Amino acid sequence: MSTATDYKFEGWGAFDKNSIKGELKWFEYEPKHWQETDVDIKIKYCGICASDLHTMSAGWGEADWPQVVGHELVGEAVRVGSEVKHVKVGDMVGVGAQCDSCGKCPEACEKNREQYCTEMVGTYNGKFNKGEAKGDKSYGGYANYNRSPGKFVFKIPDGLDPALAAPMLCGGATLYNPLTLYGAGTTAKDVGIVGIGGLGHFGLLFAKALGANVTAISHSESKKADAEKMGATRFIATHGGGEDDFKPYARSLDLIICTSNDENMPLSGYLSLLRPGGNFILVGAPEKALPPINPFQLIPTHVSVGGTMIGSPEQINDMLELAAKQKIHPWIIKRPMKEVNQAVPDMHAGKARYRYVLVNEENGGKL
Amino acid sequence: MSTATDYKFEGWGAFDKNSIKGELKWFEYEPKHWQETDVDIKIKYCGICASDLHTMSAGWGEADWPQVVGHELVGEAVRVGSEVKHVKVGDMVGVGAQCDSCGKCPEACEKNREQYCTEMVGTYNGKFNKGEAKGDKSYGGYANYNRSPGKFVFKIPDGLDPALAAPMLCGGATLYNPLTLYGAGTTAKDVGIVGIGGLGHFGLLFAKALGANVTAISHSESKKADAEKMGATRFIATHGGGEDDFKPYARSLDLIICTSNDENMPLSGYLSLLRPGGNFILVGAPEKALPPINPFQLIPTHVSVGGTMIGSPEQINDMLELAAKQKIHPWIIKRPMKEVNQAVPDMHAGKARYRYVLVNEENGGKL
Repeated sequence: MSTATDYKFEGWGAFDKNSIKGELKWFEYEPKHWQETDVDIKIKYCGICASDLHTMSAGWGEADWPQVVGHELVGEAVRVGSEVKHVKVGDMVGVGAQCDSCGKCPEACEKNREQYCTEMVGTYNGKFNKGEAKGDKSYGGYANYNRSPGKFVFKIPDGLDPALAAPMLCGGATLYNPLTLYGAGTTAKDVGIVGIGGLGHFGLLFAKALGANVTAISHSESKKADAEKMGATRFIATHGGGEDDFKPYARSLDLIICTSNDENMPLSGYLSLLRPGGNFILVGAPEKALPPINPFQLIPTHVSVGGTMIGSPEQINDMLELAAKQKIHPWIIKRPMKEVNQAVPDMHAGKARYRYVLVNEENGGKL
Repeated sequence: MSTATDYKFEGWGAFDKNSIKGELKWFEYEPKHWQETDVDIKIKYCGICASDLHTMSAGWGEADWPQVVGHELVGEAVRVGSEVKHVKVGDMVGVGAQCDSCGKCPEACEKNREQYCTEMVGTYNGKFNKGEAKGDKSYGGYANYNRSPGKFVFKIPDGLDPALAAPMLCGGATLYNPLTLYGAGTTAKDVGIVGIGGLGHFGLLFAKALGANVTAISHSESKKADAEKMGATRFIATHGGGEDDFKPYARSLDLIICTSNDENMPLSGYLSLLRPGGNFILVGAPEKALPPINPFQLIPTHVSVGGTMIGSPEQINDMLELAAKQKIHPWIIKRPMKEVNQAVPDMHAGKARYRYVLVNEENGGKL
């Protein structure tokens, strides 16, 4: 049991897969055991991420109900463990999709890519592994308070609106990570973003901020005007996804980040857009296998198909700095957190342009 | 018509797909038009490559018959065009799988990766594109003479046995290229080679020479002793290819080069061997699609599946230097070129341990 708090942990509970329909219920829950590496956060904002929907609908498998989803949370640090040095009480801080890792594995934690640690703990639907907290569930940001290990608590830079920072913590990082890793704006001058949704819009914003020439790739022209406002200088509508839809653009990109969940995506067409040495990086996760890949789409063209997941703490800090410096402005729509049961079905229906951010007005969040 | 030669171009012709059975016929053919960028080579040695078999059997489609296959040829430069500066008459030289490219495209030729040029000309079964030679067929190394553009003619370093150099020009380069490109021995300390055949054995030799810890990966233990002699310090027999066959070795490799042609390869098992950030690079070419890839094999592990093809002139020169310096000794079996109609079926039957090299004794090649 945590001590030294005058607040209770309450949030919007998902008790079964009907929660996706807007059947979340406010309830009180037990946070993880307090450890001196932790930070308690009074939540002001929380983005709605597609992962939240996959969890609420049990699309990625049954969750360990009840859940409090939400992993793009921002608020005020109200309690800071004695071993946390980079945050102090009163700071505006945030947590993304990951809240813990083993901290010592050579292949992930020691290489500053903690998100690939085999003991990675999600900000919700996870279980902590260490010390007194071992076995404790993690609960996310559709709530009034959050408790997370300080290593995964980020200080929001001055000059970055906390409401705008929130959806960057998962959605933004998911795009910023592969863009910087694969050299957007440096070795990869020409960058394509597949899918102009919550994730894709971050792709356009960050690819432009990093100095790349940005191509938006979408099924139809419907989001062309928006994509251009976000930084795209070229727009490819793939229509039926046939060879002719791609041919005029063959070998014109160095890097493609794919945010599509469509298991019937025209993958071979996308690959034909890459120059030799090009990378096609998946960040969206279709629930089934990818369309078949013929080796002749990889070998004589020297093209790779890979994937990356969210961002590491180092990458998230770098992203927040860049966003503050360049005044990057995600396209968000604020929704009162108390109306989450309307916001979730709206998100599920694809109405977000391009990211919903829940506002906890009781905690001082501003609509 | 070429001039200033006192030799005729003759070789072992493949006239249809029965040639794979050992029905090659010696015949005279017209080489490409002579250009001052060309070199004529009196062939002493020529490796037998799997590509030769795919062409002779029409497995990659009907060839432009007749063909003279062979793209691992080494011999004496007997005529050197006035525009060729790095080779002189009398030099020991070789040609690999590529003999021409456009020379000016920004995405391939200007980046020293000429093998991905859209105007890449194969050493056989190709057509030249430039000047007077436009439309001329390319003919390979199962022959007495070869004429190739000098850019793709490599000087064999002193101290490297020409018979050993021959199979490096395609087979060796095919492994050397991804090994160096993906950091074998530097950023990729632990390297796996799938398939211990003609290509795979080069993988083991070069990965070791580059300073990597080398793992050989094969269906069974049958080639374990050989693989260890070639430099493998660990051997994984994948047996049925089930999860349990791979589990003990999970996340233990940084780079895997796959030489397998098996369209039923246990791809998801192979991918499970990679650490986050790892690359799985295809150099063998199954004739069908790869086994299905689930995005969850790429995203939460940050693993890529890619391909590379042969090597660029720059890479081939570097490889030959390394081979000479480190006295790398491929495992070859010499076969008289005049007995090619026995050697080809033997190769097709998988008898080569690990590469056949045809010896043109009439031209001074030594058995």
